[in-house]
Amino acid sequence: MPINITDFLSDNAKSMRRSAIRDLLNVANRPEIISFGGGFPNAETFPVDELKQIIAELMEEMPEKLLQYGSTEGSVAFRKQIAKRYKDAGLDVDIKNILVTTASQQALDLISRVFLNPGDTVLCGLPSYLGALQAFYSYQACPVGIKHDEEAEAVVSALCATGRKPKFIYAIPDFQNPSGVTMTLEKRQEIVDVARKYDLLILEDSPYKEIRFEGQAYPTMYSLAPERVMLAGTLSKTFAPGFRLGWVVAPDQIIDRLIVAKQSADLCTPIFNQEVAARYMEKGYFDVNLRKTIDLYRHKRDLMHKYLSEFMPEGVTWTRPEGGLFLFITLPEWMNAKELFDIAIKENVAFVIGEVFYCDGKGQNTLRLNFSYVSDEMMKEGVSRLANAIKKMMARKK
Amino acid sequence: MPINITDFLSDNAKSMRRSAIRDLLNVANRPEIISFGGGFPNAETFPVDELKQIIAELMEEMPEKLLQYGSTEGSVAFRKQIAKRYKDAGLDVDIKNILVTTASQQALDLISRVFLNPGDTVLCGLPSYLGALQAFYSYQACPVGIKHDEEAEAVVSALCATGRKPKFIYAIPDFQNPSGVTMTLEKRQEIVDVARKYDLLILEDSPYKEIRFEGQAYPTMYSLAPERVMLAGTLSKTFAPGFRLGWVVAPDQIIDRLIVAKQSADLCTPIFNQEVAARYMEKGYFDVNLRKTIDLYRHKRDLMHKYLSEFMPEGVTWTRPEGGLFLFITLPEWMNAKELFDIAIKENVAFVIGEVFYCDGKGQNTLRLNFSYVSDEMMKEGVSRLANAIKKMMARKK
Repeated sequence: MPINITDFLSDNAKSMRRSAIRDLLNVANRPEIISFGGGFPNAETFPVDELKQIIAELMEEMPEKLLQYGSTEGSVAFRKQIAKRYKDAGLDVDIKNILVTTASQQALDLISRVFLNPGDTVLCGLPSYLGALQAFYSYQACPVGIKHDEEAEAVVSALCATGRKPKFIYAIPDFQNPSGVTMTLEKRQEIVDVARKYDLLILEDSPYKEIRFEGQAYPTMYSLAPERVMLAGTLSKTFAPGFRLGWVVAPDQIIDRLIVAKQSADLCTPIFNQEVAARYMEKGYFDVNLRKTIDLYRHKRDLMHKYLSEFMPEGVTWTRPEGGLFLFITLPEWMNAKELFDIAIKENVAFVIGEVFYCDGKGQNTLRLNFSYVSDEMMKEGVSRLANAIKKMMARKK
Repeated sequence: MPINITDFLSDNAKSMRRSAIRDLLNVANRPEIISFGGGFPNAETFPVDELKQIIAELMEEMPEKLLQYGSTEGSVAFRKQIAKRYKDAGLDVDIKNILVTTASQQALDLISRVFLNPGDTVLCGLPSYLGALQAFYSYQACPVGIKHDEEAEAVVSALCATGRKPKFIYAIPDFQNPSGVTMTLEKRQEIVDVARKYDLLILEDSPYKEIRFEGQAYPTMYSLAPERVMLAGTLSKTFAPGFRLGWVVAPDQIIDRLIVAKQSADLCTPIFNQEVAARYMEKGYFDVNLRKTIDLYRHKRDLMHKYLSEFMPEGVTWTRPEGGLFLFITLPEWMNAKELFDIAIKENVAFVIGEVFYCDGKGQNTLRLNFSYVSDEMMKEGVSRLANAIKKMMARKK
């Protein structure tokens, strides 16, 4: 006889939220659907030949190391390469301040686990990355949203006044997921100042920073306040998501706690994957491939912009990200992206509804488009289908 | 100015316990030390040539699949191979009841997360696997110990009478870590009956089951009560720990909850690693290599037994596991394995003190030896050094 599982669930489990993106993508899985839904890198950017060569080389050189248990902190060779990249970008990071994680989702999870009690407030963007919200919910924390143009101090002081002082501020300063918006230096400084004044931590999530199409990079928030910022990075968008490699840069005391948390979470990230990535970076392949990736995604963004301008009806607007993988569309206020989704699926095109990124339950008239994944031909056809779906929904209203 | 991290920590973080094994192994890291400490497989068992071939083959055939995001449930090909292995062993498992995890430590973590509230009781062996205890502590649960020969019903009913009904029973029925003891069929049935009577779940941790040196395998507890058992498996001991591949077999409803938990924990286990392992199993390499591994470890166990008999002073006893990687030593009652450890390190030999496996704080006169990792020559030398350390400690008492 089956048991009733709900009798057994933890409060954490009851607070967890299923990924709406995952469910949407399941619907969008049919081959005839053009999907702007996921955050998939383009397979053209995968360095297949370089990886073949490196894996063959390493399996000759150090098979035992590659296949044995690794340390919880992560491979020294891999952390050295990460530190070197930061150093080249002007940021001095010691490898003892780097913890390798099973991609950056695990960084979000471990940080949530180490810092969040049930009911704790986390300040995050409106909209903000769904995977982070999921991590916060799964420890029964309460994300509170702040708009990109809202003054951080006003929000924090109001929260403090009602006994809801945030444990940390969650931010994706570069080409934010889902909005594509980048924080100015002033904004970064403002948030850091508020964190210092109110003694808050900052979780800086930085998966896209290296994928900048144009303009000058701003400094990381970590560089502005290394005593209180945890900087999460990943190779999922610039190397291969199938390798699941990410990391956190943080002060000694925090790394120490995260290591203990990681011991019970998964003991260590695959050492095979880390050593391969380290060698790949060491050989300079990473930089060459990154430049190609940037060129490709810039082209894809431009193309999507071109087709959006060409096909979209009046009243629809979109962001112009200077990097990353996503742009964000705002529909006329009366429109609901969930309803649009059903129409769009019939037109064989998919996207992610914006409201899943809004912890305040709003954003019904928004949606996220990924421009990195689909081919140029499908891009045109897909945007055209999406525009048709929007027009159909508009026509119904009249 | 550095911040004071303790002001920010969650209650979970305060409840976490650092792995004592990890700290011990750090001490034992010097090359002159022979270590029986870790649970490392022998590097001779790593299928280096087969892996080279398979990786080259798959990187030709399906590089995009290997390098892209995978699903949270795990690779279909990999789950099919796991299901097939269970089927060959007489257990019918559908792939929808298998969730791939980032090695079995993550299975322990996700199950703890989904079921354990702060203060919840988990019944587990005295002694029991440290990584599992760490997972339970990290959700502020309270492991309660039961000796191998204690009657489960008496313990459970006593706990229920004091309002501490266990959420689940944690068991490693085959070649238990650390004791090396295997549960009889009667014991398995007894535990399953108690779980049914009191409506408890069972977490059956099964990393060593396939490494049986002799005698008949007993059925899994999962096969005895598939409605309430979560069966955790891993390739870390039979393939390559550096790949971090494990899984849980569980009823639909539980898998469904674990998937949601895994989404926020690390999204998915490396698809590259899963596809490589799937092909390795498909080609029949796994079975060939497993037979070699079993022969090697049987030989290692016999050798360790031989040297223990040869070198150990009177009053020291040890278990004779029918499989797995560990045996457990009991010293005379007055001896403390922690003190012995310091003496042993001076003799250049290391082990894990037994008390870290005892959730009741006992087991001071016990220690765990791993027999899979060291070479035959080092085995002799190491056991001899350990015996010397014990004799020195005994001499001091006199």
